[in-house]
Formats: sequence, C-alpha cells, structure tokens
Amino acid sequence: MRVALGQFNPVVGDLAGNAEKMRRLYAEAVRADVDLLAFPELAICGYPPEDLLHKPHFLRDCMRAVERLAAECPDKTVVVGFAEGNAANCHNSAAILQGGRVSHIYRKSLLPNYGVFDERRYFQPGGEPLKISLKDLDVAVTICFDIWNIGWLRSFLRTVGRIQMILNISASPFHTGKVKAREETIGRCAREFNCAVAYCNLVGGQDELIFDGRSMFADSDGVVVAKANAFDEDLIIADVVAADGAVRIKPAQPAAAQPADLIDEIYQALVLGTRDYAQKNGFKRVLLGLSGGIDSALTAAIAVAAVGAENVVGISMPSQFNSPETISDAEKLAKNLGIEFHTIAIGPVLAPFHSSLSVVGGWDSSGIAYENLQARIRGCILMSLSNQFGSLVLTTGNKSETAVGYTTLYGDTAGGFGVIKDVPKTTVYRLAEHVNSTAGHEVIPNGVITRAPSAELRPDQRDSDSLPEYDLLDKVLKGYVEEDKSVTQLVEGGLPSDVVNAVIRLVDRNEYKRRLSPPGIKITPKAFGKDRRLPITNRYRQSQDTS
Amino acid sequence: MRVALGQFNPVVGDLAGNAEKMRRLYAEAVRADVDLLAFPELAICGYPPEDLLHKPHFLRDCMRAVERLAAECPDKTVVVGFAEGNAANCHNSAAILQGGRVSHIYRKSLLPNYGVFDERRYFQPGGEPLKISLKDLDVAVTICFDIWNIGWLRSFLRTVGRIQMILNISASPFHTGKVKAREETIGRCAREFNCAVAYCNLVGGQDELIFDGRSMFADSDGVVVAKANAFDEDLIIADVVAADGAVRIKPAQPAAAQPADLIDEIYQALVLGTRDYAQKNGFKRVLLGLSGGIDSALTAAIAVAAVGAENVVGISMPSQFNSPETISDAEKLAKNLGIEFHTIAIGPVLAPFHSSLSVVGGWDSSGIAYENLQARIRGCILMSLSNQFGSLVLTTGNKSETAVGYTTLYGDTAGGFGVIKDVPKTTVYRLAEHVNSTAGHEVIPNGVITRAPSAELRPDQRDSDSLPEYDLLDKVLKGYVEEDKSVTQLVEGGLPSDVVNAVIRLVDRNEYKRRLSPPGIKITPKAFGKDRRLPITNRYRQSQDTS
Repeated sequence: MRVALGQFNPVVGDLAGNAEKMRRLYAEAVRADVDLLAFPELAICGYPPEDLLHKPHFLRDCMRAVERLAAECPDKTVVVGFAEGNAANCHNSAAILQGGRVSHIYRKSLLPNYGVFDERRYFQPGGEPLKISLKDLDVAVTICFDIWNIGWLRSFLRTVGRIQMILNISASPFHTGKVKAREETIGRCAREFNCAVAYCNLVGGQDELIFDGRSMFADSDGVVVAKANAFDEDLIIADVVAADGAVRIKPAQPAAAQPADLIDEIYQALVLGTRDYAQKNGFKRVLLGLSGGIDSALTAAIAVAAVGAENVVGISMPSQFNSPETISDAEKLAKNLGIEFHTIAIGPVLAPFHSSLSVVGGWDSSGIAYENLQARIRGCILMSLSNQFGSLVLTTGNKSETAVGYTTLYGDTAGGFGVIKDVPKTTVYRLAEHVNSTAGHEVIPNGVITRAPSAELRPDQRDSDSLPEYDLLDKVLKGYVEEDKSVTQLVEGGLPSDVVNAVIRLVDRNEYKRRLSPPGIKITPKAFGKDRRLPITNRYRQSQDTS
Repeated sequence: MRVALGQFNPVVGDLAGNAEKMRRLYAEAVRADVDLLAFPELAICGYPPEDLLHKPHFLRDCMRAVERLAAECPDKTVVVGFAEGNAANCHNSAAILQGGRVSHIYRKSLLPNYGVFDERRYFQPGGEPLKISLKDLDVAVTICFDIWNIGWLRSFLRTVGRIQMILNISASPFHTGKVKAREETIGRCAREFNCAVAYCNLVGGQDELIFDGRSMFADSDGVVVAKANAFDEDLIIADVVAADGAVRIKPAQPAAAQPADLIDEIYQALVLGTRDYAQKNGFKRVLLGLSGGIDSALTAAIAVAAVGAENVVGISMPSQFNSPETISDAEKLAKNLGIEFHTIAIGPVLAPFHSSLSVVGGWDSSGIAYENLQARIRGCILMSLSNQFGSLVLTTGNKSETAVGYTTLYGDTAGGFGVIKDVPKTTVYRLAEHVNSTAGHEVIPNGVITRAPSAELRPDQRDSDSLPEYDLLDKVLKGYVEEDKSVTQLVEGGLPSDVVNAVIRLVDRNEYKRRLSPPGIKITPKAFGKDRRLPITNRYRQSQDTS
C-alpha cells in the first residue's frame, strides 16, 4: 500500500483556500499512484479555530467543504481532519473520502485540555474506533492525542482485531526538542501493536503557535524510517508492506533535510512564525526599531529571512543617552541586512513632551517615568509609520525581560507581533551567533553581541543595574515560569534565595504588562500566552518558609 | 436549623486575607447562634485562581489554610470552598469543618468549561454526593454548576435519601439579568426535591469578572424568601424549618435593598469592578482623559463612585480639532464631580512629532495615521502620569467602538482597565442619564449627552461619518458578537444587509486591537475577553449566500 502524508500549511478559517491546497496535493498524490493520502487534524479549517466553532454557520461551511473535497478527489482514499456537528455537539473528526463521498468518520476520543489546548471547550469525545481496509492492509485511524496514552489506546483498539498500520493525523504545536517525544510516542505505538505508524502533522504559524511538520513513518519495530520537512510543506510518500509478521516502510523519496541542532530549530521556527503571522494577516512589509542592541538585531535578521530584505524597514530612534557605538551598529546592521533604514531622533519630541507634562506638579525628568516616556515616544513613532504605510510592527522584547517586566508598557511593547517574546536572553545570544555563522560573515555586528546590554534610557545604564546576570536570571525563570517550581525547590536546586525571591516577585507583579503585549512565537514548553494563564489580580506571594 | 451565608469579597491568591475575613464572619455567626455557616466556592483562594492551580505549593498552601480555619472555627459547622489535591489530580471542593477539623469533603461533579469557565483545565470531577445531618435536618452539599442540570442532579442525589435542604456554594459571574436565571434554577431545584435551597454566592471584582452576590434562600415551594446584598458583602441568616412535608424559611433580618432596575444593576457592577480592580491591584488613585464626550464622562462618574472624588484625576488634552463646547464640558464635568483636573494641550507635541515623522517620505498630515497620532500622544501623556504618580489609567472605550475597532491601538486603548469596555454605546447613554437622575442634578453636563458623538481628530468629524447610527450598530453587534448569528439570520431578523456585512467585517478585522487592549468589566452574556476567544489570524469571512 502506498501512503502519502500531505503536510500543508492551512490558514485558520480559509476553508476554500485550504481545500484548494489539498486538491493540489491530491493531484500530486494521484500522479504518484498512492492508495491513501492523509491530511492533518482539522485541515479543512486550520488549527486551532477557537470560538469560530461556536458559530453554527462555520460548522455548516466546514461540512460543505469536506463534501466538496470528497467529490473532487474521487479516485483515492483521502483522510482529512474537520470540525463536525453543531455548536451543541461538535467533534474533532477525520473524514474518510472514498468514491466521491464521505465513506466513514472517526471522532477524536482523547481531547487535550491543558497547556495551549482547550479542546473540551469545543468538542465532545468520540468513543468508537475506526478500522478501514485498503489493499491488503487494515488501518486504524486516530487523531493526535489519541496515541499519546498507550494504555488507553490498547484498550480502545482491542475490538478492532489485527491492524497493520495506525494512521494518526495531528496538529501538534512545536516547542524546542518536542520532536523527540513524538518519535518516542510513535515508536512505542508501533511496537505495542506490531504495526506501522503513519503520522501526518500540520505545518505553519498560527498566532503564537508554530506547527513544525516533520510528519513521519515508523515501521513495526518502532523505527522512524522517513520524516518530512521541518517548518515547511511537504508531501511524503512511502510504501507500507506487511510480511513475515512485521510491517516495513519503503520511502519513495530521498530523506528531507532536518534542522542541524536545537538552535537551528528555534531559528527556523521563528522565521516561519514571523512569515506566517505577517502574510496570513495581510502584511507584506514589517517595521521595527533598531536600537543597536542584540534583541532588535536578531529580530531584524529573522524578519529578513521571513519576508525578504526588501520588505523590512528599520528605524533608529536615538536620544542623548544612546552611545555612538549603538547608533552606528544599528546602521551597520541595516546595511548588512540590506534593509530600508531611517533615523528619527526623539529629542525634538521629548523636550516639548517634558514641558507639557511639567504643568502637572511633581512631574520630573530624573525618574522612571521620564525613561519610559522615551520608549513610549519610540512606540508612537513606529505605530504611526505602521499606520501610514500598512506595515506590521515587530516588537523585540525577549522572554527574560518580558518575564520580569523590564519593558515599557505601550513603549517597547507597542507593536503587532513579538518575534522573540519566548526566547530567553541567553538563547538570543546563541541565535545571533547562529545567524552570523550560517551566513559565514558578520551580519549582526560583533559589537552588538559583545557589548553589555543596556536600555540606554539614562546615562550609563546597564541591564545588570536592575537585573541579575542573564545566565542566572534565565535559570530562575525556567524553574519558576516553565516548571512551576517553588522557592524552596529553586533554592535547593542551588539558586541564591535573594535572587529567586526578587525575580519571582517581578514575574508576579508584571502579569498585567504581559497581558497587554502582542502575541509572540512559542518555542519553549511553557510560553507566556495561552500556555500560562495567571490572573492579573493575584495576591499569592509564596515565600520560602511556606513551601 | 439556623443557617448563615457568608457572602464575602475575597482576593485571588490572598489565602491569609481571605481566611481572616471568614474568621470575622464566623465570629458574627457565632454571636447569632447559627448552626451552619457557608462560604462561597473556592472561598479560600478566590475565584478563578487560573494557573495558580498548577503550582503544587499553592495547592498545599490552600489545604493548610483550610485546616487552620477549621481549628479556628471549632464551635459551628462551616462549609468552605477550596482547591484540593495536587496538580495532577485537583478538585474544586467544599470542606465541612466541624469540631476543629475537616470532617467531610464534597467534590464538585459538574465542571463548566464554556464561556468564561475553564474548569476542565484544572479539576477532575467528583462523583460522590455528600449528605450531612445537622440538628434534625439532612443537607446535601453541592457546588455551583452541580444544580444547573436538574435531570443530572436528580440521578446524582438518588442514593442520599430524603433531604430537607440543598446547600449550594457558588462563584457565579454576573451579567445583566442573570439573577433571574439563578432564581429560576434554585426554585426548580427546591420544588424537585421538596426542600429548601441555601445558595451562597461570591461577591467582588476579579479582573474582567464581577461576582454580584445576592446569595439567597428558597423554601420548598421554590419561592426565594431572602436575598443578600447585590454587589456588596453580606452575612444573611435564616431559620430553616421542616414541618408538614414542607420546608419553610424564616429570615432573621430585614430584606436587603436590591438594584432598582437593569441599568442600576449595570451601574453598580461597574462601580464594584472598578473599585476592586484598583484596590486589589494596589492602586489608590485613578487617572483618565476627559474629552468632553460621553464615554469618558460616564467613566469618570463611575470612578468617583468607585474610589472617591479625591482619588480621581481628569486630564483634558485638547487639540485644534476640539470644539470649545467639548473642552468646557470636560472642565464642567470635573468640577461637578469634584476631581483634580489638568489641561495639557497636545499641539506643542504634535507639531514636532509631525516634523520628525516627515523624514520618512510619504508621511502625511491628512490621513488616519495623523489622526491616530493625536490619540497616541494622549495615551503617552496618561501613561507617563500614571508612571510618575502610581495611578491606574482607566480607558474609556465602549463595547460598540471596541467591537468595530473605532479606536486607536496604543492611543485611546492605552491604560490599565477598561471600565465600560463591555457596555454598548446605547447603554452608555442610559447609564449617563441614570447618573444624573440618581444624583438629582446635572453631574454629566447635558451637552455631553445631547451632542452628536465625535472623536474630534479632524475638522467636523462625526462618529456617524464612519459608523452606522448606534441604535442599529448595537443591534447588529448583539446578534453577531453575543449570539453568534449568521449574516442570513441577522438580515432575516430585519437588519439591513449592507450594514450587517460592513459591521461584521470590521468586527472580524479588529480582533488584534481587542487582544492588545486592557481587560474590562463583563456585563453582557458575552464580553470580549475570556468569553469570546477568536484567533487573530482568521480568514473566515462568512458571506450571506453561504449561510
């Protein structure tokens, strides 16, 4: 049996456009003479459609799109994910298209409702397994999370008898290193049922989520024999052959290149996420402030890779507090990247702003409000240019500063999309080096990488005046934000208790700033956003002695 | 049996503070010689604690707080809601405190996971009913949603035998008119089981949610005999007496005053929500821009009721486009309210901003970007003053303009809390009249109420240049946003199809602006926020002919 996995990049809600992409892949699969073509979970409508699923007309349109696709793909068996039913009783389903119509439907049975997932908000669980027979093989159809609980799956599939393949259609969001967990799960499944596993994953960016593709085939020994592109569309084809009590996979194509390492993987995720957010939201061009610091430099390099140098505009907005080095590094970076570059000094606006505010007694020019005003003027400039020219403003804050609120609300957080919002500062450095080493020459000026980080909002300011060193900060943040560890656990893990307490306090106090900041690309196991939902109003202050 | 319902206002996460409030109510209940004192759902930690429930140390601290409370309240039976268990297996539970310890635990069985609720994200359902016997009465303990499905409840309570009372501890979020649905549910329950129902609800504001209190007792005929304060704390006490096959309620106190009508109810909700967001987040003072328009006037009046005139600062930020009437009405309003008032003209900042932006070819002073720049300068001024003086910036956008994106991102949307974000413009007018009629004199100047609404960002601008009349707009929005109706349904309901299509397009396109705006108080059945979760990246465009 020849099987194809149609790993494509849908747009949420674009039922006609998604179907058109699938029709093209179907034509390609027909030419390759496949017996079975699978598309990802909720391929018809994109994942996650969220509260679109509460609109009865949306569900009706999904069903119509599936029926139309069935009529247009009559010659092979096609499996496609769609949202089925009505608002009161909706399923995350796979339609089996055969002979021009929907021949069977499988309904996802295990519905994830943790992390970024809200499937119990929308779907009722199925409960009936589905086995289809094609050529001489029996195939169990499953959807995403269904195969992640092997004990449950064993009991669920008990009644279907012998199978030679499990087909799993997925929309599995990316975080760094997650592909390993998927390979292990798929391998375990294959060995448990002594069958092949064909795993078809979504690819593309959807708001804060990245789907990284890497659809794959495993043989009955649990070995992943073929794997599709990472972070790009692909149609991966293999022959599935049962013989001598085993099931073998024979790839019909050479192997796709895979990311070189975890840093390369993150880089590719950020490029895809930026490109898709811009393009799917109708932006051809993007715009960002270039401070001469490493965060905006990395963001600019990612933007160029995502939408092309000709579509990126960098704005330098110096004040009296910027050093000549950072100003010239911003310009050098723009030149290296080949992007449009403008300089708008903020002094001429800052001075009258300051005078105007001085009518309120108590306003002063030496405090944090004056520092933040500079960032807010820059935010105004970028948003004004965005407004005038229709380009998307990329914000440049990293996860470390986002976590502790070392940002100006409606200042440097003003924009449409936070490219590196989930990237810890220590990883920002590694990504910057990756950009330069991949290019084989200095794209991000070395001074940007080696200079001590500073917000440059007052004379001789350094990040280290206000924050612990980033190596230490990022360790605390990983434990507290991503792993929900207590103060005691962090301190027992070797982190200094004064730093731990200070950092946790900052993280807790700054929830409101994060809520009012643009979405950004999730690359860690727990990102700020749908992954981590804390109340703004929250007086829980855990101290070491209570834990 | 004498029963007291301790309707109090917790702060999410403030375990010690919440317990302290409950201890005081316990002392009061002891003085009134009650047999049973109930506190609301999750009273120990506040509702909803969201992802605090993923912290193992938080759950441990909750359990300790319950045990401490039990030890401190040994003389009466106390029922208190808390989060029980560990992150892997957590329950929304009621602890029964008797003799200084936790004598029984009931675990909520029906877990709402729709609208603003995410209980399946956190909790496992219970499955065992709990009946406790006090004096001569048998009482079934339930939590919130458990009593909303009467068919399910009938079967759930089948095994417990005869009961004389159902105790329900709740955290039921407010929307206009919802109390009626609660009374019907409670009445139905009472009649079904021929028993009394004691319903203890939370009160207070928590981010976008308001809990309106109005705890109540119903007799076995389903008649609500006693009801606690709306939008305020209360300890409501009644004797529950079973005789002659019925259960009667004898209130121990005079009846609490209730809101005069639905507009008064909304007004009180907005006042409580504003007060609690400010105070629970540590803000004594609030700050807002006064444009001379009705939205900011109403917001200011609510702010004064919420935190006191001495803690409200109004800023007028006129430009050349503001009429003398609006400028003087802003000042008149501030005087009527007795609040601090400053004028900061934006012209001196707008001019150099414009010159600076002109270095980028194509920038012009006649378009939407220039209009929005004015709003952004105002946002900068307010955020700067907030930064300098530690006051909370209230935004003044209503639901109608928020829905269609008739706002400037990071301009008039810049701030910390959106007081009237869920109030349709037509309701804004009714609330403004309510403010004046309640005061018995003109608080909000009549000119503000009668003048045609305008953003005043260009000469002779009117809202009606860009938007349908608000009466019509609000009808479309109610159908589309709150009721998820299709174009066809709206048009068949009598709304003009060109308006419907234009409005829907605006609502869909402006999801990103709403996501980047501050939280605000939910008063309708479906507010923007946790209630309505649409993707930003979303190409679903339903047209009339496809529905």
